[in-house]
Amino acid sequence: MTATGADPGTPAAGGPGTGPPGRPASAVVLGTGLIGTSIALALREAGVPVWLADQDPAAARLAADIGAGALLPDGEPPGPEPRAELAVLAVPPGAVAPALAAAQGQRLARWYTDVASVKALPVRQAAALGCDLASFVPGHPLSGRERSGPAAARADLFLGRPWVICPGPQTAPAAVAAVTSLVGCCRAELVQLSAEEHDQWVALVSHAPHVVAAAMAAQLTSAPAGALGLAGQGLRDVTRVAGGDSGLWTQILAANAGPVARVLSQVAGDLAAAADVLAEAAAGMGAGTGTGPGQPGPLQPGHPALKLLAGLLDEGSAGVAMIPGKRGLPARDSAVVQVVIPDQPGELARLFQVAGDAGVNIEDFGIEHSPGLPVGVAELTVRPDAAGVLTQALAAAGWPVRR
Amino acid sequence: MTATGADPGTPAAGGPGTGPPGRPASAVVLGTGLIGTSIALALREAGVPVWLADQDPAAARLAADIGAGALLPDGEPPGPEPRAELAVLAVPPGAVAPALAAAQGQRLARWYTDVASVKALPVRQAAALGCDLASFVPGHPLSGRERSGPAAARADLFLGRPWVICPGPQTAPAAVAAVTSLVGCCRAELVQLSAEEHDQWVALVSHAPHVVAAAMAAQLTSAPAGALGLAGQGLRDVTRVAGGDSGLWTQILAANAGPVARVLSQVAGDLAAAADVLAEAAAGMGAGTGTGPGQPGPLQPGHPALKLLAGLLDEGSAGVAMIPGKRGLPARDSAVVQVVIPDQPGELARLFQVAGDAGVNIEDFGIEHSPGLPVGVAELTVRPDAAGVLTQALAAAGWPVRR
Repeated sequence: MTATGADPGTPAAGGPGTGPPGRPASAVVLGTGLIGTSIALALREAGVPVWLADQDPAAARLAADIGAGALLPDGEPPGPEPRAELAVLAVPPGAVAPALAAAQGQRLARWYTDVASVKALPVRQAAALGCDLASFVPGHPLSGRERSGPAAARADLFLGRPWVICPGPQTAPAAVAAVTSLVGCCRAELVQLSAEEHDQWVALVSHAPHVVAAAMAAQLTSAPAGALGLAGQGLRDVTRVAGGDSGLWTQILAANAGPVARVLSQVAGDLAAAADVLAEAAAGMGAGTGTGPGQPGPLQPGHPALKLLAGLLDEGSAGVAMIPGKRGLPARDSAVVQVVIPDQPGELARLFQVAGDAGVNIEDFGIEHSPGLPVGVAELTVRPDAAGVLTQALAAAGWPVRR
Repeated sequence: MTATGADPGTPAAGGPGTGPPGRPASAVVLGTGLIGTSIALALREAGVPVWLADQDPAAARLAADIGAGALLPDGEPPGPEPRAELAVLAVPPGAVAPALAAAQGQRLARWYTDVASVKALPVRQAAALGCDLASFVPGHPLSGRERSGPAAARADLFLGRPWVICPGPQTAPAAVAAVTSLVGCCRAELVQLSAEEHDQWVALVSHAPHVVAAAMAAQLTSAPAGALGLAGQGLRDVTRVAGGDSGLWTQILAANAGPVARVLSQVAGDLAAAADVLAEAAAGMGAGTGTGPGQPGPLQPGHPALKLLAGLLDEGSAGVAMIPGKRGLPARDSAVVQVVIPDQPGELARLFQVAGDAGVNIEDFGIEHSPGLPVGVAELTVRPDAAGVLTQALAAAGWPVRR
């Protein structure tokens, strides 16, 4: 095989070989979008020779230009040996099985994996197309970004994030080993699940929340002029993920239709029940005020209908507390220190200098928006035992600070 | 009137008087939770004498201890003059009208306002209770915090945030002027609306999103063990606001029942329709793969049912783009620069030092979570014309950086 364009690295002579422990000997990445290009960059950083291809030649060329590997030569007839140790099919869910069948027909690689965010359907499709399932390890790196395209790629995209693999009964252990080394090169955390478990889990933590955010955000398009000026960080957060690529998301949702439908149906039911309770309350109250005998008013805290609503809010609050934060700690195992900062160059540097000098590690950081005004409020998240030290250090340095 | 506890400041002699332009002469804050105490702190910073009361004496004492004012003497008989120029009723929506009636009965102040996040019902209730509506300006500062209690208070809580007032036909212009000066002391942005407009707008941008986030988060309580380990920033953002005070939120929702019900009903309908489309698609596909003739498969992009789903996602994406960002700019008028940072003290200081030295103002900042790993990815949001300068400056200083 002859590389075109940039140097793919140092290909092992005479075929794909077997890489040293911890990295594949060579790889082909089919599909140079955000995910494929990021994987290629991580492999290149680990010293793995990489070839790139995409049905959009400009995307593949851009990926090659930013150092993700060399372009895969087009239309070369298959040789007796597979061309690379590992092929990564970084294509949308519906394209995985056809791409696998074509790649296996060309003996493109010894082992294969994909990155689609749905797993059961591509596996069934691959079986129906007669693919060799022994050499295929279904995979899904959870990168959690809304951006797309090779220009947004980076080698650390998967750093510390879960990377699910779903080997089936037919999968060869050596295939799992090759994909495990890929996950290691990307410094992700390997999680092994069945394809069905994977699909149910991501329906709950990713696919359904995307649709819920979109349904809320869709209401904003008919907002009266000015109403969105009252929006705060809450609305921004609830709706943010809905800014993603609608076309890709529609395909993802269709491919994981059953599990997503089950979650959405429950959320829709809970919201419809809440809407019914509130509509009845509004109708019962009419223009009443509840301020005297015979005056219909808003529902009182003990009313059974409000228990349904309060129960939903309580359960929501409990659900939020269950989501692991950074380092896998529940959100409650951290402390927040608030500081008022002038909104000008250099102030944040001074702030972090004080924190660094005090030996305090900032676990997370955010700035609250203050439209049109020259100061903001920084929120520094630290481990609870560091909050006192940080507060004292910042106060001593003259910052207006509050825990 | 004799102050107890801390000094309220310098009360105007012989009654409330009229403050210099820009601030009330004196104020009483009834209800020393997060909002009331933050208002009191802002008034104190502006040099306004403040008295505090709360039905929980410990909360009032804590507020006084952190410098928010002096405790209001209990049970003193009303004198011939109002005690303060302005009374702020910082109580939950259902308590506004009774508190107003009682305060007016005691001639507590010349002018009155409240801070409840619902406006039409308290006004109707105040009228039904025979309150003087000329001296009452319904108000709602939008602070956007989930925390509560006086300990979380700060004088800058309302800085640059919208503060809605809803004067009615009976409201005295001097009352509006007094509340306008309060809003100025809190450095908030005054927005004047009818009570009905206010209630519809906050139902859309705050109350309904809260319930939507709660309904999604409630699904997490029955998540299989391990599933939440796949959660990313998207799920955290969608559900975050649902971590708030369920009791207060239930009361808010009941008091704004009609407008919230209308938004939730539409969101529930959209989600139910999306769930139906997906459930039908799943049932139609069964164990099929769509890989050959007569093989049922996932819905294809051209299918009418997918148009409904894609339409919802498109509309959601359009809604997200309409939310103003910091400085009132739509989110698209900013650029993001990404930097890989070692997760240790001092690194952020070094990063911001470089940005500050380059004269670049960071509009917003976030760190992506990397559970268990020693590096993170910082995202710096800047004005589009500053992105190039920042990227070059960071790269020149040795940071791994990407726009």
